Amino acid sequence: MDKFKVIFHIDEQDKADLMLHNIRNLMADLGEENLSIEMVANSTAVKMLVKDTNVFAATLKELAEKKVVLCACANAMRDLGIQKDELLDFVTVVSAGVGEIVKKQTVGWAYIRP
Amino acid sequence: MDKFKVIFHIDEQDKADLMLHNIRNLMADLGEENLSIEMVANSTAVKMLVKDTNVFAATLKELAEKKVVLCACANAMRDLGIQKDELLDFVTVVSAGVGEIVKKQTVGWAYIRP
Amino acid sequence: MDKFKVIFHIDEQDKADLMLHNIRNLMADLGEENLSIEMVANSTAVKMLVKDTNVFAATLKELAEKKVVLCACANAMRDLGIQKDELLDFVTVVSAGVGEIVKKQTVGWAYIRP
Repeated sequence: MDKFKVIFHIDEQDKADLMLHNIRNLMADLGEENLSIEMVANSTAVKMLVKDTNVFAATLKELAEKKVVLCACANAMRDLGIQKDELLDFVTVVSAGVGEIVKKQTVGWAYIRP
Repeated sequence: MDKFKVIFHIDEQDKADLMLHNIRNLMADLGEENLSIEMVANSTAVKMLVKDTNVFAATLKELAEKKVVLCACANAMRDLGIQKDELLDFVTVVSAGVGEIVKKQTVGWAYIRP
Repeated sequence: MDKFKVIFHIDEQDKADLMLHNIRNLMADLGEENLSIEMVANSTAVKMLVKDTNVFAATLKELAEKKVVLCACANAMRDLGIQKDELLDFVTVVSAGVGEIVKKQTVGWAYIRP
């Protein structure tokens, strides 16, 4: 079977907890082995991917180990003054969060915006 | 003509009024007979599908009679302590709201998140 | 190469600044010449397309000149008492914002909801 492919989009930091719940519930429902998941954070939501005092770090690490791709938008990082080395080690920087979302949808990924 | 197929996603209860307006406006615009519509409520938005003191009950019943499928996420129900028999009679319980959304988009349904 | 085609959906006026940033960042990332972009405003977000005292007017004009299609929902205009001639000259009125979004996704456009 082809895998289900899903982009999660977050641009509000206070949606982080809900979105992480969504991702875990999705894995439990459809099965990790049947899913490719990518999370794209832009705007102020990029802060949820920073190392320092991050209450989501353990959950994010667990998801990264399960092959969830966690992306931070470089435009948002520049606007917020966040450097690459301030992000959790397993985070991928993309040139533009919205560009990444468009490219993925164009090749058939589903889109969820919690 | 093939029908237009649309998933409406709601995870914030205070978006309920807007979303029900959206669904009615969509039916008026494209024609009920040309549409398959499913609404998926997860997180706290599941509360809008509960029987008790529900200001949206009449509108929801009207939509259900017009074949709009109204879904409640079982994960959210468990988190909120809501039992199946507390939901309006015409509501469908799905194992995971996000799983339902992904499965529908994968087979070509459009996605709207008010 | 086929163009990337993208619908931006806004129904909350306070998302206007973020969405306009998103559109500019998308153009810079994927290249204006590779993109067809349409913005659909419904609900109270239609107010961002009104002429009077509009802080976004210059940015919207610049985007319209770059072929971004800016749409206002006629249902929202009626609900808010906004007439066509009160909108910025380059705005397109669509019969229903959600209908426009569904029609575009049905023919392969990506969807972003900031």
